[in-house]
Amino acid sequence: MLSAELKHRLSAIVGDKYYLDTPNELYAHSYDATPIFQAMPDAVLLPATAQEVSAILQLANEHGVPIVPRGSGTNLAGGCIPVDGGIVLNMTRFNRIHEIDSKNLTATLGPGVATAELHKAVEAEGLFYPPDPGSMRISTVGGNLAQCAGGMRGLKYGVTKDYIMGIEYVLPSGEILRSGGKNVKDVAGYDMTRLMVGSEGTLGVITEITVKLLPLPATKRTLVAYFHNLTDAARTVEQVIASRIIPATIEFLDQSTMKVVDDFAKLGLPLNMKSMLLIEQDGSEDQVVRDIAQIEEIAWLEGAADVQLARTFEDGAKLLAARRSALAALSRLRPTTILEDATVPRSRLAEMVEEVERVAEKYQLQICTFGHAGDGNLHPTCMTDERDQDEIHKVERAFEEIFHAAIRLGGTITGEHGVGMAKMDYLPLKVGEGGVELMKRIKAAFDPNNIMNPGKMFANSARRRVVVQQ
Amino acid sequence: MLSAELKHRLSAIVGDKYYLDTPNELYAHSYDATPIFQAMPDAVLLPATAQEVSAILQLANEHGVPIVPRGSGTNLAGGCIPVDGGIVLNMTRFNRIHEIDSKNLTATLGPGVATAELHKAVEAEGLFYPPDPGSMRISTVGGNLAQCAGGMRGLKYGVTKDYIMGIEYVLPSGEILRSGGKNVKDVAGYDMTRLMVGSEGTLGVITEITVKLLPLPATKRTLVAYFHNLTDAARTVEQVIASRIIPATIEFLDQSTMKVVDDFAKLGLPLNMKSMLLIEQDGSEDQVVRDIAQIEEIAWLEGAADVQLARTFEDGAKLLAARRSALAALSRLRPTTILEDATVPRSRLAEMVEEVERVAEKYQLQICTFGHAGDGNLHPTCMTDERDQDEIHKVERAFEEIFHAAIRLGGTITGEHGVGMAKMDYLPLKVGEGGVELMKRIKAAFDPNNIMNPGKMFANSARRRVVVQQ
Repeated sequence: MLSAELKHRLSAIVGDKYYLDTPNELYAHSYDATPIFQAMPDAVLLPATAQEVSAILQLANEHGVPIVPRGSGTNLAGGCIPVDGGIVLNMTRFNRIHEIDSKNLTATLGPGVATAELHKAVEAEGLFYPPDPGSMRISTVGGNLAQCAGGMRGLKYGVTKDYIMGIEYVLPSGEILRSGGKNVKDVAGYDMTRLMVGSEGTLGVITEITVKLLPLPATKRTLVAYFHNLTDAARTVEQVIASRIIPATIEFLDQSTMKVVDDFAKLGLPLNMKSMLLIEQDGSEDQVVRDIAQIEEIAWLEGAADVQLARTFEDGAKLLAARRSALAALSRLRPTTILEDATVPRSRLAEMVEEVERVAEKYQLQICTFGHAGDGNLHPTCMTDERDQDEIHKVERAFEEIFHAAIRLGGTITGEHGVGMAKMDYLPLKVGEGGVELMKRIKAAFDPNNIMNPGKMFANSARRRVVVQQ
Repeated sequence: MLSAELKHRLSAIVGDKYYLDTPNELYAHSYDATPIFQAMPDAVLLPATAQEVSAILQLANEHGVPIVPRGSGTNLAGGCIPVDGGIVLNMTRFNRIHEIDSKNLTATLGPGVATAELHKAVEAEGLFYPPDPGSMRISTVGGNLAQCAGGMRGLKYGVTKDYIMGIEYVLPSGEILRSGGKNVKDVAGYDMTRLMVGSEGTLGVITEITVKLLPLPATKRTLVAYFHNLTDAARTVEQVIASRIIPATIEFLDQSTMKVVDDFAKLGLPLNMKSMLLIEQDGSEDQVVRDIAQIEEIAWLEGAADVQLARTFEDGAKLLAARRSALAALSRLRPTTILEDATVPRSRLAEMVEEVERVAEKYQLQICTFGHAGDGNLHPTCMTDERDQDEIHKVERAFEEIFHAAIRLGGTITGEHGVGMAKMDYLPLKVGEGGVELMKRIKAAFDPNNIMNPGKMFANSARRRVVVQQ
């Protein structure tokens, strides 16, 4: 609970209109896109300038009030849940693109700009911002930065961290700092820009972002290949890379995902197939034609049951839109949909998919797997019901096994969703207890009073979830 | 001075053969490639395993002995100088390439592998490691990582940080940690990999590196353009980018550098010209032919006095080798050559070059400017004599002005050389006093006893050099 005086002072910073604390407003900021997690904040503030953020943080720091920064709340790891109450800092008023600098190939914008808005604005100038997380129509670039969001183009173009060149950010002390800028090369001190990327709101608040842009590729083409088994699909991915072709996108759908997507989007997919790959290449016309022809040949050679080239740009876009609808389609099946993102080096893809199938069988759960085959980033997705405590217990145990399998295969517990609350118990699996302790010391260097998004990323104790010990 | 007992224990860790402390051996590790700076270590150790590094660091941490890690010592910012004595950790025995994984497009290697060796090994497999710092024939990948080394291909391919996927590193406590790996996407906790990149040996010791590889481009072509003035050259660079072409390399040489390089390499350059651009494009044959033709047209349109296409691959390589010889050529002129790397956003290139000329004129110094025009990373290089205290004083004041000008133009104090000792007084110019304080707190989180490369990156006091106040 905020005192009347604190409430008065906070409200004076942003103006009454942007200090929200009716039950409805608080409720609307009590959850994100992660099932099961929910907690009520004490207030929601919508600042509009770095100076306002600075004033809010100084007060909060002085009074030990938690600050939970958020954009559109599409987080899939519980990262936006105000688990200790306090202030949710809704950053969506920082929604202006300040500049598109085509000479230096950069854009400078507020963190509240929606990712798809940025795409649209830069593409109108013949430029390209590659990161395209599934949530891009509503998620913000600031949220993408905080989570280091990925997407379908990771294989060829990398992820959000590869496009953040500079930031303005506010420390809990209220200090407003800048890091990086428009320089391609800049080695003045530690790379604070990269440290803030993926820090999940636990270090400070981002108030301005400069991103790197590329020339927009001249054209793109899409191909779809169907397989009687997993191995042939995985070998096709391997052989494409072995042929020194890096497609923009290689997406994978298993049979159960295909069924659900087909039912949702009415594509007429061959549902007797065990898996499918959706491959897109972009670039110059001749390069794209040559690459797609070679990829088609490889797919046939590796045993594809069928390979189809999208005849038009629109046909290709339709196929990728169907893939993008996977989460929405799966969500219709049962009350609770848990989307995970265990990730492995791409050469271990088939093993990982088989592992997920084994675990689903063992616990008698419905787990569909789809994802970014080109970069080994899979989304095993479980359809369940959070009201069924027994089943949720099984789901937890199943994902625990899946994370352990990913680590065993040289992978990681999260490829693009982040740690948040959902995976903080598993962080030591990937980075070790020593790595977690080091990260906590870094957090303390930024945030000595632990007001920034507390209760995220780091488990409160070394104790694992009860389910682990069974 | 190390006590006899400490010496005995350190020597037992690496073996007598790899514990060096004769005057010659100490002298050989008292300097790097930076003029003027020099200091003697107490001992030089050459460990061969992470376990040995761990044991050395534990002992040093316990006894407060400075540790200065180094590869080949090609540092240009005084980063390898054992300014407080202690132990130089020569990492060149970590010189094995453990694996080239063509399925996951990674290589895993020891930090002591020479950069050019890595190039050769991966290119033999049709793969490509783009970072190519000027020192690449002798510098090590570990040194490149510690400095976030750049090179000629930064414009299209980025720099060392864009290619480091995973590391094994040792903390001063002796803990051996791993970060990252072979996963294209990995957001488990803070990005410790990126934090170690460019940390200049101040946080820990790197003992293993996993780098990202690309397919080797099919071909490349080189073009050279000569200009009567700076503006036309700068506008050519701008128009190439505005045409949405990203060449692999755009190098710039001013008239005085052209003269010196021509005298050194006997190229028959037109020395009445004010500047030249060397542009290389790589990729598929048709793409390269098309890009180079368009670049040629742009150069003529923007007022080039002459444009020549290298007829053969060898001719192109010869031109770039000449550019690479610039530092060697300049070094012959006078006893001391100070190579700087003030960097600006590429659109400010002409202004920056003019600023350097103005400063050289003002202080009556010989400063040649060349560098990576495509990414705004310039190398104003001063030929001087360190025995002439008056002139060195003028050089310091001149570079101070150049750094201020770079910052004023939205640039940075160092694009690819690092802060080290040479630029620690200027770090606050770029990141602010608050930024420096935050970085120091991060250093303390890794290295509470300040044994890792002390006296680098952060000035001991907030006081600027005396020359600033004049």
